[in-house]
Amino acid sequence: MWQQLHEKIITGDIKGLARSISLVENEYPGYEELLQSLPVSLSKITGITGPPGAGKSTLTDALIGQIVNEGKKVAVLCVDPSSPFNLGAVLGDRIRMSDWYTHPNVYIRSLATRGTMGGLHPKIIEITDMLKASVFDHIIVETVGVGQSEIEIAGLADVTVVVVVPEAGDEIQTMKAGLMEIADIFVVNKSDRPDADTFVRNLKQMLAPSFGKHYNEVPVIKTAAAKKEGVPELFDSIKHMLRKTHQSDRKFWLLADRAWQLIQQKRMKGLDKAELKKEIEDNWQKGNFNLYKFIAGK
Amino acid sequence: MWQQLHEKIITGDIKGLARSISLVENEYPGYEELLQSLPVSLSKITGITGPPGAGKSTLTDALIGQIVNEGKKVAVLCVDPSSPFNLGAVLGDRIRMSDWYTHPNVYIRSLATRGTMGGLHPKIIEITDMLKASVFDHIIVETVGVGQSEIEIAGLADVTVVVVVPEAGDEIQTMKAGLMEIADIFVVNKSDRPDADTFVRNLKQMLAPSFGKHYNEVPVIKTAAAKKEGVPELFDSIKHMLRKTHQSDRKFWLLADRAWQLIQQKRMKGLDKAELKKEIEDNWQKGNFNLYKFIAGK
Repeated sequence: MWQQLHEKIITGDIKGLARSISLVENEYPGYEELLQSLPVSLSKITGITGPPGAGKSTLTDALIGQIVNEGKKVAVLCVDPSSPFNLGAVLGDRIRMSDWYTHPNVYIRSLATRGTMGGLHPKIIEITDMLKASVFDHIIVETVGVGQSEIEIAGLADVTVVVVVPEAGDEIQTMKAGLMEIADIFVVNKSDRPDADTFVRNLKQMLAPSFGKHYNEVPVIKTAAAKKEGVPELFDSIKHMLRKTHQSDRKFWLLADRAWQLIQQKRMKGLDKAELKKEIEDNWQKGNFNLYKFIAGK
Repeated sequence: MWQQLHEKIITGDIKGLARSISLVENEYPGYEELLQSLPVSLSKITGITGPPGAGKSTLTDALIGQIVNEGKKVAVLCVDPSSPFNLGAVLGDRIRMSDWYTHPNVYIRSLATRGTMGGLHPKIIEITDMLKASVFDHIIVETVGVGQSEIEIAGLADVTVVVVVPEAGDEIQTMKAGLMEIADIFVVNKSDRPDADTFVRNLKQMLAPSFGKHYNEVPVIKTAAAKKEGVPELFDSIKHMLRKTHQSDRKFWLLADRAWQLIQQKRMKGLDKAELKKEIEDNWQKGNFNLYKFIAGK
């Protein structure tokens, strides 16, 4: 089975890929061997994040269209519970998205945010590694920028796009600091709103001292995703950033965290907390329980 | 050195005990052997908790006096940052407490709340085990009932005293549910305030359906700790509850959690996250990094 699935991932068989992701998500016995068999890939990930209501999924939708129009293949992981890609969506949105669900060059997958710390998804690295081993020219991870997810997206994505909407000039000060720091590209969406230009100007001014970069290094792109305006420019900017991106430090701490977790799971294998409690309880009843001697034997 | 410290703990040498606690707190090499050498003890722990401003430390102070008057020895661990036992206290409070610091039958230790989850203290079990192995008739752990600490106190203490103050009858509804559930004894402190009787009546009514216990099983004791009123009654109640207390379930989940932690630390020994990151980075540069093969070798 696993050899077949391996082949299906490599060749871009969507059903095989979808099944593999589900098996890995649910830790179906043998999934580790599948992951170990994946070829090392240099495919890159584009993260799209931002506050709720910024229009991330409309933008992702438009971006899928742009990528498909250029004859490329794209995979989209959606870890944004408020996104119409996801189940909580209203019917109108879901119909709008449905074109891409069946397009042969597009693979869309929604992931429940099961991470206890509000992160992306406990197996996000594994799932993106499977997509990387497959045939996609672009991999997009869409997530809402709340909790820990924007920290993780910065470690996962090669290029992080932060989507915001024009607000009154003063309010930009209240943008979540974390989003400011992780942006490789800023998108001001719904830029057909009045005051959009003032907002862009204020944003550029705020970016100037940020993170030691010259502000010209963080492009600010105006889009009106619902009208597809600015989307070709955004895609050009993403491609440009992906070409110049190098393995940054950010990538390694996320990998190191996950490696640490996986090693911990491996080394704790066979131990169960409920059984441990039972064992302690039994020893305690016998009246000679010393926690530290007990640990020394484990 | 450890053999000497072991003797000093057993015989109740305060300086030796204090030094041992510091060595264990700081994981001074060899501390595990000291812990393993401790005799198993049936000494019991009284937890005192409640919201800030309830007068927990004034009450603890009065309780120390009561215990000393009865010719007994007492150890007090203070993990309440707002307590005058602690460093953040105003001068007047500290002078008031100082009698007990030097009394031969009293050992008081403040612990910084270093627990990441707002718990009592990462080594609270180890420290109370050292006190249990020593000469004390009573061990008191005082903590403010916020964050995780009231959950941990319920697992650590054999009898948990929850201290509250009279408020307007309606406001009792807002008492933190966690405190309600862990109380083996309720103390209504500052009960010389007007409305104290109404408050006590309401509290007893609220206790009736709680936790499946008949409310008579959770005594409600009125004190005015600053005037020492009600303190002998409280101490009698504590002694009564300590006699009838058995090893409850609550004890074992805290122990199991700690055992799990200690086993994890032991099994992860020699691994350092920064070094892991460096190793991943080096492998990555060589261009053939597969996370899952990497883990398999760890």
